Amino acid sequence: MLDYKGYLEKLTKFNENTYPLVNPHLREEIMQIPECSNEQMEQAINDAHEGYKTLKGLTSYDRSEILDRASKIVSDNKQLFAETISKESGKPIKFALGEVGRTIETLKFAAIEARKLEGESIPLDAAPNGDGRDAYTIYQPIGVVGAITPFNFPLNLVVHKVGPAIAAGNSIIVKPAEKTPLSSILLREALVEAGLPENAYIVITGDGPRLGKVLLESSVVKKITFTGSPQVGKLIKSQAGLKKVTLELGNNSALYIDESQKDKLEAIAKQAVNGAFAYNGQVCISTQRIYVHENIKEDLITHLKTQAEKLTYGDPLDENTDLTGLIDEKSQHRILEWLDEAEKAGATIISGGEKLENSIQPTILENVPRDAKISCEEVFGPVVLLNTVKDSDQALEEMNDSQYGLNAGVFTSDLAQALKFGHELDVGQVLINDVPTLRFDHMPYGGRKNSGYGHEGVKYAIHEMTNLKMISLNYKF
Amino acid sequence: MLDYKGYLEKLTKFNENTYPLVNPHLREEIMQIPECSNEQMEQAINDAHEGYKTLKGLTSYDRSEILDRASKIVSDNKQLFAETISKESGKPIKFALGEVGRTIETLKFAAIEARKLEGESIPLDAAPNGDGRDAYTIYQPIGVVGAITPFNFPLNLVVHKVGPAIAAGNSIIVKPAEKTPLSSILLREALVEAGLPENAYIVITGDGPRLGKVLLESSVVKKITFTGSPQVGKLIKSQAGLKKVTLELGNNSALYIDESQKDKLEAIAKQAVNGAFAYNGQVCISTQRIYVHENIKEDLITHLKTQAEKLTYGDPLDENTDLTGLIDEKSQHRILEWLDEAEKAGATIISGGEKLENSIQPTILENVPRDAKISCEEVFGPVVLLNTVKDSDQALEEMNDSQYGLNAGVFTSDLAQALKFGHELDVGQVLINDVPTLRFDHMPYGGRKNSGYGHEGVKYAIHEMTNLKMISLNYKF
Amino acid sequence: MLDYKGYLEKLTKFNENTYPLVNPHLREEIMQIPECSNEQMEQAINDAHEGYKTLKGLTSYDRSEILDRASKIVSDNKQLFAETISKESGKPIKFALGEVGRTIETLKFAAIEARKLEGESIPLDAAPNGDGRDAYTIYQPIGVVGAITPFNFPLNLVVHKVGPAIAAGNSIIVKPAEKTPLSSILLREALVEAGLPENAYIVITGDGPRLGKVLLESSVVKKITFTGSPQVGKLIKSQAGLKKVTLELGNNSALYIDESQKDKLEAIAKQAVNGAFAYNGQVCISTQRIYVHENIKEDLITHLKTQAEKLTYGDPLDENTDLTGLIDEKSQHRILEWLDEAEKAGATIISGGEKLENSIQPTILENVPRDAKISCEEVFGPVVLLNTVKDSDQALEEMNDSQYGLNAGVFTSDLAQALKFGHELDVGQVLINDVPTLRFDHMPYGGRKNSGYGHEGVKYAIHEMTNLKMISLNYKF
Amino acid sequence: MLDYKGYLEKLTKFNENTYPLVNPHLREEIMQIPECSNEQMEQAINDAHEGYKTLKGLTSYDRSEILDRASKIVSDNKQLFAETISKESGKPIKFALGEVGRTIETLKFAAIEARKLEGESIPLDAAPNGDGRDAYTIYQPIGVVGAITPFNFPLNLVVHKVGPAIAAGNSIIVKPAEKTPLSSILLREALVEAGLPENAYIVITGDGPRLGKVLLESSVVKKITFTGSPQVGKLIKSQAGLKKVTLELGNNSALYIDESQKDKLEAIAKQAVNGAFAYNGQVCISTQRIYVHENIKEDLITHLKTQAEKLTYGDPLDENTDLTGLIDEKSQHRILEWLDEAEKAGATIISGGEKLENSIQPTILENVPRDAKISCEEVFGPVVLLNTVKDSDQALEEMNDSQYGLNAGVFTSDLAQALKFGHELDVGQVLINDVPTLRFDHMPYGGRKNSGYGHEGVKYAIHEMTNLKMISLNYKF
Repeated sequence: MLDYKGYLEKLTKFNENTYPLVNPHLREEIMQIPECSNEQMEQAINDAHEGYKTLKGLTSYDRSEILDRASKIVSDNKQLFAETISKESGKPIKFALGEVGRTIETLKFAAIEARKLEGESIPLDAAPNGDGRDAYTIYQPIGVVGAITPFNFPLNLVVHKVGPAIAAGNSIIVKPAEKTPLSSILLREALVEAGLPENAYIVITGDGPRLGKVLLESSVVKKITFTGSPQVGKLIKSQAGLKKVTLELGNNSALYIDESQKDKLEAIAKQAVNGAFAYNGQVCISTQRIYVHENIKEDLITHLKTQAEKLTYGDPLDENTDLTGLIDEKSQHRILEWLDEAEKAGATIISGGEKLENSIQPTILENVPRDAKISCEEVFGPVVLLNTVKDSDQALEEMNDSQYGLNAGVFTSDLAQALKFGHELDVGQVLINDVPTLRFDHMPYGGRKNSGYGHEGVKYAIHEMTNLKMISLNYKF
Repeated sequence: MLDYKGYLEKLTKFNENTYPLVNPHLREEIMQIPECSNEQMEQAINDAHEGYKTLKGLTSYDRSEILDRASKIVSDNKQLFAETISKESGKPIKFALGEVGRTIETLKFAAIEARKLEGESIPLDAAPNGDGRDAYTIYQPIGVVGAITPFNFPLNLVVHKVGPAIAAGNSIIVKPAEKTPLSSILLREALVEAGLPENAYIVITGDGPRLGKVLLESSVVKKITFTGSPQVGKLIKSQAGLKKVTLELGNNSALYIDESQKDKLEAIAKQAVNGAFAYNGQVCISTQRIYVHENIKEDLITHLKTQAEKLTYGDPLDENTDLTGLIDEKSQHRILEWLDEAEKAGATIISGGEKLENSIQPTILENVPRDAKISCEEVFGPVVLLNTVKDSDQALEEMNDSQYGLNAGVFTSDLAQALKFGHELDVGQVLINDVPTLRFDHMPYGGRKNSGYGHEGVKYAIHEMTNLKMISLNYKF
Repeated sequence: MLDYKGYLEKLTKFNENTYPLVNPHLREEIMQIPECSNEQMEQAINDAHEGYKTLKGLTSYDRSEILDRASKIVSDNKQLFAETISKESGKPIKFALGEVGRTIETLKFAAIEARKLEGESIPLDAAPNGDGRDAYTIYQPIGVVGAITPFNFPLNLVVHKVGPAIAAGNSIIVKPAEKTPLSSILLREALVEAGLPENAYIVITGDGPRLGKVLLESSVVKKITFTGSPQVGKLIKSQAGLKKVTLELGNNSALYIDESQKDKLEAIAKQAVNGAFAYNGQVCISTQRIYVHENIKEDLITHLKTQAEKLTYGDPLDENTDLTGLIDEKSQHRILEWLDEAEKAGATIISGGEKLENSIQPTILENVPRDAKISCEEVFGPVVLLNTVKDSDQALEEMNDSQYGLNAGVFTSDLAQALKFGHELDVGQVLINDVPTLRFDHMPYGGRKNSGYGHEGVKYAIHEMTNLKMISLNYKF
Repeated sequence: MLDYKGYLEKLTKFNENTYPLVNPHLREEIMQIPECSNEQMEQAINDAHEGYKTLKGLTSYDRSEILDRASKIVSDNKQLFAETISKESGKPIKFALGEVGRTIETLKFAAIEARKLEGESIPLDAAPNGDGRDAYTIYQPIGVVGAITPFNFPLNLVVHKVGPAIAAGNSIIVKPAEKTPLSSILLREALVEAGLPENAYIVITGDGPRLGKVLLESSVVKKITFTGSPQVGKLIKSQAGLKKVTLELGNNSALYIDESQKDKLEAIAKQAVNGAFAYNGQVCISTQRIYVHENIKEDLITHLKTQAEKLTYGDPLDENTDLTGLIDEKSQHRILEWLDEAEKAGATIISGGEKLENSIQPTILENVPRDAKISCEEVFGPVVLLNTVKDSDQALEEMNDSQYGLNAGVFTSDLAQALKFGHELDVGQVLINDVPTLRFDHMPYGGRKNSGYGHEGVKYAIHEMTNLKMISLNYKF
């Protein structure tokens, strides 16, 4: 039976300091978590280096099999993983189950890509004097990867770093969000049970900035992969020296709904409400800014309101629950302040807008000035803004008026319009006829501007965690 | 100064038999062309085998430079090439110039792909017991290629075989259409001037079936690449033994125009008339079957008629000429018979329908039964059929009701409809918002059903003219 | 519990004719097998066409999951599969278990490639006037595949056709060798249990030429994939019309052992003996011609003899058995005749050479003239030829003096020599420091000359079982 | 006639400050160069942003044609370019001509890759719920690129940034080394003559750190590409925020010569001497550390000495000149100090070791401790170290004992040894049977450890100068 307790105890043996883990929904302490010391992180780095050496003895077949078995183990323990996620993050169980489902696939994709790490054979004789050489590229593991992960997908955003690392042949140290360390440990247990060498994946719990600094300063750590805020992301990049860096930062995801969709507004509203309020909007690509053609605006509002008002707040473990407490009081306050600022600047509330126990009502706003924080920053809460536009060009211009550029969505039946958005939206991924709150785990996923540096998505993450090497064999010398 | 005369004289030295070359527009003899003997073809095969050995000593850089220089030489002799095409094929000079322009690019793409013939590096350790080996693939030339080419693009459909062959490192023998041998010889002169070894590209003129048989029976010829009729194509495939075979056969290209296009019908009609009547419809992907939504049918007819009636018949070398004599009297008779058959079966003539000097008027028909020859066979003449449909599903069904499957076009602004056609049209290439009479020389180009076997398009043709080889190096034995 | 009996009964309901299945080792009848009628094959084609329509409704994820589960089911029934192989083919159980192990991986690779069927996105604006279009390629299933498979790997050579077909989204009809129908049926049961639609994979037993003709003549069957003799392969290609064709034909695999290997001869001899005599040499890439440097010849002979003489003949189900009865008496006679012919032409026997119950002793010959059948044809029996060469250039020349060109092996520690062989051996796969009797199931695998047409290896087989399609979206019209 | 004077005058109009340009060979002032102001750089950034907008209107065909024509123009002005390089860098004319030759090819490769910027088409239905979408990737230009380039290849290391930038559709600002601004300007003139929009490539001369800071701080500049020292490289990475960064930093390139090469030592010594002393060793991948098997050490020394002593010091424009003045006095002093330090630590001089006019004699050292600066730092001067090893494992260990990891070379005829080095040398490129001082302009080229971040090589550089975008089209909504 998988359990995180044994691992936590091992951590505690090294260092007795702890910090309280709080259930975000009820804001009650659940348990104490080891506050690992810097020395502990240093030891972990050394251990991971040993783990890397062990991994080097494995073939890509071996690594693939481990990942495949781990996928199976997670699948066999779906409920346990979902409840663990739910417990530490306050995520409603139905979304937690969805996250586990994606983790199963992410591990599977990692198992696949481990076997598919193909290089190129390069005709060097395409250059003058290049005759007589066979040259080909291989992707070599880099060694120890340091990962820093956020609270909102405490399992799947960990596996998006761990899966590619192992597929590539690297060992990895995860510093999970202080608020959600358990899922990453449970994942480790699944991988070890699947045959992963003990030191190939290590979880170190505790204070992010302090422990992250140890990772950044270690010459043994060859890569930092981070999901979190732009502020921290930039800091990491500036302090990483020549380490490889991948950063998945924020977004204030935009969605355009074209006039051509007037008969599909109910279905779109359902998706948009899900995109905006799933897990209380605490999603990197939560639908935050909706741009709607003026001719269909009223109908859309009706549908959005209807859908939003159906959502129920309650116990995360209840399968009917849609909304739960926000991750902490600070977030709740921040969002309420931003709402207040927006209202003062002229915004009007279509739905919600008030505190709701440990969260905020699912809130739909209109007439929000572009420079209000709730529009130009990432809300990370159950708030969505409705902006009315005269045409798709206005929508395009306003959607691009953002410091972020991760995902964007467009509902339209017009081909030319769709591909104009496709080319001109300044984001990494354009989703036509989907909400921006969509990610398939094998697709490339990377943000522009303040949204990130580099790409995830299993295959792409692996490329960013390996060293490309060219071997040239001169056989005519 | 490039000229084909010297080469023809060389051919004549071997064998004095000749046949008359006729200007198709005026149906007057221009000159006598060598009717090469079987022995001459056998000699050519031997010579080409020597040429291949010489080519083997060149690097991909060398081959690329030859192709690049040849592209430049054709460009410097644009008018000469266009007039040669026009003279032998009766093609209006403006279309002949277009063909030369494409040849320049096809050679350039071949020069590019010669340098880009990259293989893969394969992780053999993705299989059990595969550890300790580096494996990579290379594309090796196959030797002598035999090409049999048609009259309608006597330059560019030759270069689509010659360019890839040389890029790959093969030598090639071209048996051009009896009616149009000159352009292929002029191309050879350009390539030799660019540095191609003399025996790397040989043209043999004369009777197709007889000389083709020599190619098919030779064990030195490793590949037959053919553009022409399905009947001959199938015969070639059945007689080719284990030789590689690529066949580009016919089509009766279909185009759908959706109701959503009602404001664009003039522009579409211009393209469709060009697609149907350019070079008298003697184009593999000539627009033959138009399917139009019933609500816009009348407007489309008006525009098609207007455009078609603007076309002028005349001297191929006059830059204003649109239409010229068909390739031969037999074709003219065949098409007139097919028109007659269709009319008897209930077809009505919207425009044209009559003999026009050595051609036929640009003809638009309606109400043609599906099983009339003019609908289900390839017309290869200035005839286009208009079919009215109730909706796009009917169009899709009728477009697919064909023995052919090369290109198809769809004009629509509806994204879902466009991609439904994209997936469900049973053809090799679906062109949304273009007529089917469109080909870019670097794109994959291959037909389904009776339209062909394998692909052309420079990169794709090269792959079909090379032997993939895997080299595995076990370095841990 | 998997079983082939139910399926055989279903076949029998249609048509009561049967033929006897013989245990090749003891040459005793095991059971009666349905001799399916032509009508039955026609019905199977119709059923498979329905199966294809069902498959079309599945996603690549679904198809991958089915293949993955089937891999698991085969793994869970390893012994049953191995015994079935052994029973019908007389294959020693240790080799049969090896074949099952490979089948597990081949299905896994098919599961992987089902999810990895990536196309290209093509910059059409690389050609003049190509601006304003997004174009990409997809691989579409072709419909019904007809497979004709040999007796020697009655499971894994079936799965090399079935796995890619299903990965691609095609349905498939397998006509297994008359002598070995059971394994292919058992595989079908595993796939159906894994969720494959019933009609997506159909086995039809009975006479090859007659039933194969039905497949070849059907317009519903879009591809013939065959493993067997060059004679039949060529016939298939000539009768296949425009159907796609992949042929894996014979080989008389050669191996060179360089002087540099003088300290490794024992290890090499072990591999060579295994390569020559495993499953009585009834392997497409059985090591048939060994070329050895004259300076190490004597030592090599000593080791080869020692190893060969250790091999034991006996019950296929005994795990210590190396050698068993040949597939039939006809083969036994043929090989004895060839041995006789060779001896008369001057060959000397180093080891073996005599009849051994229902087989022939593991035989090593020397001084065999190049044109003796036992050298230039495919032996498909426990015979290996030793040829002494003065240097590697002589070896290269003699190895290439063959009508075949599938795999070749070279043992050498010299880099330049290795890559010279790598480039100049006229075969599909060059294995440096391995015997030619080696295939990893994901690698490209295709023969030149009389050894075949096209490639297998899961990814490559899929490409040859799909239609490449380009979809171009003009969004600026 | 191409000239840099007009462009320098334009720069001067903006700002009259200048600095002296010195001929490094004679250490005499040649001319005054504009010391551009920060405002001028800011203006250049704005101009380049306009240039980018103009470029956006071009197709990949257009960009390819510009690069192709520029390649031709450089080829037509080979001598002018070579003399300009020689004049400002003191590079012997024979090496300068070599650099121009490579520039011609680098531009050609950029022209090729501009047309080959292919993306992928991704089967989203490989994930659950991904059905009904076509998704593909495109590479979009990022905008303005800032390039900071070194003195040692003042033309080709500029074109390795400019070519890919333009191929990708970006505009670029080059801040060339203060000592060598002229070649980059001449290149600009060639590109503009070839049709490049004026603002698409701008050269700004003057102080590196000051002007680099303006580039780093601009939000308009989306990428910094730098070739130079590790110190500056790290600083750039830490200050670049979320800008893309590619860094090509130093190396102390190692070469191993195996015992198996004892008959090839003369040829190897020629290459090694060229690798060590070409352009006075002022080459990023200059051969600095030679590891030789003890059994062939004496012979190698003899050959190295013989070759080194043949080199002649003299006028850079004399085609027989091998050696010229170092780039500046500071370098000369630094190297002399390092030599001194090494000698004091026990090093012995095999050849050279003394000041030679404005340079240092071509110097071969032995017995240099690993931690001497001349061993562990990058010399960037005419010095090479000989280290004797007992076997290849010792060589491997010592070669990897370096802060750098760009290129390494190995001469060996042993396959297993070659591939062991291939896999285990911790560098980006392993060149078997070539000196490490080798780069083909289309190959991937990137360093590990302190040698860099990211890759150059035309195709690879383009990927690092573009934004990958995925467009997903849901057509079943």
